[in-house]
Amino acid sequence: MSFSPALVAVDWGTSSFRLWLMSRDGTVLAEQRSDEGMSEIAARGFETVLEHHLSCLSVPANLPVVICGMAGSRQGWVEAGYLDTPADVTTIGARATLVPDAARQVIILPGLAVRSESEPDVMRGEETQLLGAHLEMPGGARYCMPGTHSKWVSMQGATVAGFETFMTGELFSTLSARTILVHSTGGDGPVEANDPAFLTGVRDGWARPAKTTHQLFSIRAGQLLYDHDTDESRARLSGLLIGAEFAGAGVHGDEQIGLVASGALQRLYHAALTACGAKVRDIDADVAVRRGLMEAWQRYSNTSGELTQS
Amino acid sequence: MSFSPALVAVDWGTSSFRLWLMSRDGTVLAEQRSDEGMSEIAARGFETVLEHHLSCLSVPANLPVVICGMAGSRQGWVEAGYLDTPADVTTIGARATLVPDAARQVIILPGLAVRSESEPDVMRGEETQLLGAHLEMPGGARYCMPGTHSKWVSMQGATVAGFETFMTGELFSTLSARTILVHSTGGDGPVEANDPAFLTGVRDGWARPAKTTHQLFSIRAGQLLYDHDTDESRARLSGLLIGAEFAGAGVHGDEQIGLVASGALQRLYHAALTACGAKVRDIDADVAVRRGLMEAWQRYSNTSGELTQS
Repeated sequence: MSFSPALVAVDWGTSSFRLWLMSRDGTVLAEQRSDEGMSEIAARGFETVLEHHLSCLSVPANLPVVICGMAGSRQGWVEAGYLDTPADVTTIGARATLVPDAARQVIILPGLAVRSESEPDVMRGEETQLLGAHLEMPGGARYCMPGTHSKWVSMQGATVAGFETFMTGELFSTLSARTILVHSTGGDGPVEANDPAFLTGVRDGWARPAKTTHQLFSIRAGQLLYDHDTDESRARLSGLLIGAEFAGAGVHGDEQIGLVASGALQRLYHAALTACGAKVRDIDADVAVRRGLMEAWQRYSNTSGELTQS
Repeated sequence: MSFSPALVAVDWGTSSFRLWLMSRDGTVLAEQRSDEGMSEIAARGFETVLEHHLSCLSVPANLPVVICGMAGSRQGWVEAGYLDTPADVTTIGARATLVPDAARQVIILPGLAVRSESEPDVMRGEETQLLGAHLEMPGGARYCMPGTHSKWVSMQGATVAGFETFMTGELFSTLSARTILVHSTGGDGPVEANDPAFLTGVRDGWARPAKTTHQLFSIRAGQLLYDHDTDESRARLSGLLIGAEFAGAGVHGDEQIGLVASGALQRLYHAALTACGAKVRDIDADVAVRRGLMEAWQRYSNTSGELTQS
């Protein structure tokens, strides 16, 4: 193992910032995390925020930085564009955007886009996880990447054939906090992956997705007529939305799915996919994004003829 | 036509209050409307609010009042319970609750409930519209009652066999104001029933309801990739949610549906149902609820042996 820092890898999303100081062989030497939102960051300036985190870890000024995520959006630091599907995910490094006039070398990776007039789609950040997941599990054909906006990705080798985003996570948080369901599902206890109400919700949403917006109201009626408990109702809401996502993604029994996730979402989606008969291979999302960032940096360096200093 | 007031008919919902001074033959002699919310009303007191509106119209103290809607909920004025399906909708008057200790005779009509452990449902207010709609169009088998929480009702003669609620209206307002879609669908221009983006959305939601939560995100992607206009995107959002409701309700071509609605919602649902090949019979929701309130009052009077003074 090498303990000499070679690269700073950053996953910079809309509401979370994660930075890892990496050695050349992929060892994590140090880490910084923050929950600063995009609007706060835009006000302070992206470079100021980044350099603040780097100074906390005393990162030398010659160390390069590779970034994926919303920092590359139009409202981000520097717009990093999209690669259109079908897209070879191993090329995201070669298509990175160098941030102009930065104090150090900083590159931002592009997102992916499905350019379809009838059903367009975009991802930004997940393409880097996907590159890492592909390296971890090269034979995978379908990947599920749960989150605020869950992504379902079809791959052929290293090529992303297409993908679909489902608003599952945002629907869960919005419906449980901002609609009449707040009375039935309020509270903030975590949904447990082995809760029967969750798993029944998954199966109901998966089996009859057309009924989803009815089944949602039924949660409220269940509280009025049967005094259903809010924890149970919240678990059912989560299950229904995840089940409807599975129906939309066309999940079927015996299918093998690479689940790129971590923490509570990994546990929920693993249990939910298993309940629908899918064969799940777990890929840690943090490991995947770091591996993707490292690999993209290597490809960028090779393409641009520049090598990291280590 | 009689111009002598016989009854005060009130549709008292969560966010709207409508009161009509009626003659014995159903003529509307005067009207009061307000948008006071339930929490505001609960603070002032239901009787105070009602008597204020009655005094605005100089309604004599001996005139009875019949009320339907959320005023009869647990958090309302007096809980008026539910009739369980299958339920004869002509009996809601006989099952009304007399408000105790009121300054005048005030009755509140019960709601309807589907008592099913797996998919319970409730309505409160729509049962009275339904009674009026049944009297307007006795042969109808299916009624669509669009709104914040749209109701689809199956009737056999005067009996409500069952119903399903879809959260369509609340989803539209919440998604367009409280999620990432606010950037793509923000604004408050009305959706027009003949907008091609609306009608395409209806057909897409109806044909592939499992894809709804994906198609929602696609609206956002369409703005990022193609600069889709917010009015067009809002029309598509409305169409997708209504189309998904139709899929859930099992709408099929050539089916005859009684549409109990008024105003903008009537125009949108009429166009949407027609686009899916259904045969629509329009029933004005205001006319229906007044007729239902009158009929329920008559039934209550006959049952309780009391007659209106007119």
